[in-house]
Amino acid sequence: MKHITAKDNPTLKFIQKLLKSAKFRRESSAFVCEGKRLCEDALLSGCEIKSLVVSDTALDKYSDLTEKISQKSEEAIVLPDSLYAKISDTKTPQGILCVIKTLDNPSLFDKIKCNGKFLALDNIQDPVNLGTILRTAEAFGIDGIILSSDCCDIYSPKVVRGSMGAVFRLSYTIVDSVESFLNSYRDINSFAAVVDRNAEKLTDISFDGSCVVCIGNEGNGLRRSVIGACGKAFTIPMNGRAESLNAAIASSVIMWEMVK
Amino acid sequence: MKHITAKDNPTLKFIQKLLKSAKFRRESSAFVCEGKRLCEDALLSGCEIKSLVVSDTALDKYSDLTEKISQKSEEAIVLPDSLYAKISDTKTPQGILCVIKTLDNPSLFDKIKCNGKFLALDNIQDPVNLGTILRTAEAFGIDGIILSSDCCDIYSPKVVRGSMGAVFRLSYTIVDSVESFLNSYRDINSFAAVVDRNAEKLTDISFDGSCVVCIGNEGNGLRRSVIGACGKAFTIPMNGRAESLNAAIASSVIMWEMVK
Repeated sequence: MKHITAKDNPTLKFIQKLLKSAKFRRESSAFVCEGKRLCEDALLSGCEIKSLVVSDTALDKYSDLTEKISQKSEEAIVLPDSLYAKISDTKTPQGILCVIKTLDNPSLFDKIKCNGKFLALDNIQDPVNLGTILRTAEAFGIDGIILSSDCCDIYSPKVVRGSMGAVFRLSYTIVDSVESFLNSYRDINSFAAVVDRNAEKLTDISFDGSCVVCIGNEGNGLRRSVIGACGKAFTIPMNGRAESLNAAIASSVIMWEMVK
Repeated sequence: MKHITAKDNPTLKFIQKLLKSAKFRRESSAFVCEGKRLCEDALLSGCEIKSLVVSDTALDKYSDLTEKISQKSEEAIVLPDSLYAKISDTKTPQGILCVIKTLDNPSLFDKIKCNGKFLALDNIQDPVNLGTILRTAEAFGIDGIILSSDCCDIYSPKVVRGSMGAVFRLSYTIVDSVESFLNSYRDINSFAAVVDRNAEKLTDISFDGSCVVCIGNEGNGLRRSVIGACGKAFTIPMNGRAESLNAAIASSVIMWEMVK
């Protein structure tokens, strides 16, 4: 464990850039997870841990965990609480974070031939929605997530936190476009989730066999090109003046129907 | 329309208190809704509008709407944009808000005898969750919501906003405790949603007839006393290490099963 008191330490600078910039995370193939539970999740999930950073207080308080993580981590750094607070992304920091190697998992596609259930996210923008969708996908046993490259970054601190660690355990892959993904995997049953009173109802859809359901942007829904590439479209029947569901809620009800 | 430039106007002071304090909202039987869409919803839903407050810019931009609302409102106030920004609860204000009379609707209980589907919320704490649950309840056609008095305030700005106006249109009632509510309405089928691998599965539950499902606190679940007062308990089957769902997600999947 290396004790550091200067703010201009290269690892700390690296972490601050990782917390702020999706582009930098992509270029560095690394991201940050913060908090006791998430760091423990990263360890248990066999993630490749590049750095462990703990505050003096956390080193004391979570001594077992920091010991275990530091054995797996390329480096381990201890900071005064005040310095830790400056780099933390949270308001009331627990004093522990890890830098993790990114996890895109293309082996996902092996499962497509054997009855897998997949969700394809097209231009989802809200990190809270994405985090919740990942958490729910894990809870419901979804086999993999396909994300268009213009979705919000799966490695952003809000998504990692909101996913409750599902980001470490789920299979997912980032593709140039959902449309081109669908065109390359023609033997999977593909569905477009749309808001359209005239579309077939979710309750009438059978999700037997290998399936992928495509979910679109919060404001604009699915791109026409993606709907066109899907074998079928369906809608969640709704009442009321709003006639709309939050994207995470809509996704969850759909995943529930896919796997239940 | 009354033009005001002084910050210490009594209506403006009243609004600031309403935005900040649940206790004050309860005592005053009033709450604030802000933004063009919500104010329009309040008007269309026949809410009792006590005050309309608009900025100079909004008066211009939404002239039709402000004209219509001011005809129904007890008073109408125009403010300079800079003063409006000071009282607003949002970061980028649209410049229009209304003070509305609270809407608790005890007529809810008439429906209980005729096949209604109800959700009882026990100590839900997060306003974002509550707003989302209300929005989803409206979309799925739930007949009414029962809230324990220790839920977060249904009239808080975050809940009103998150509900997308459902708060104006849904039937709901606030009760001292969900348990005493269940004890007074014994002819309704009551269910406790629990996290318990050994409980009956949601997929095996029939929601025929009049039903109420009870949903508990985000961290601690349902109180034992509420579970005890329910006719049956069930769980949403889950996988993964987290084995948990966000309260709004769990509620949505349950409401979907109740009404679909």
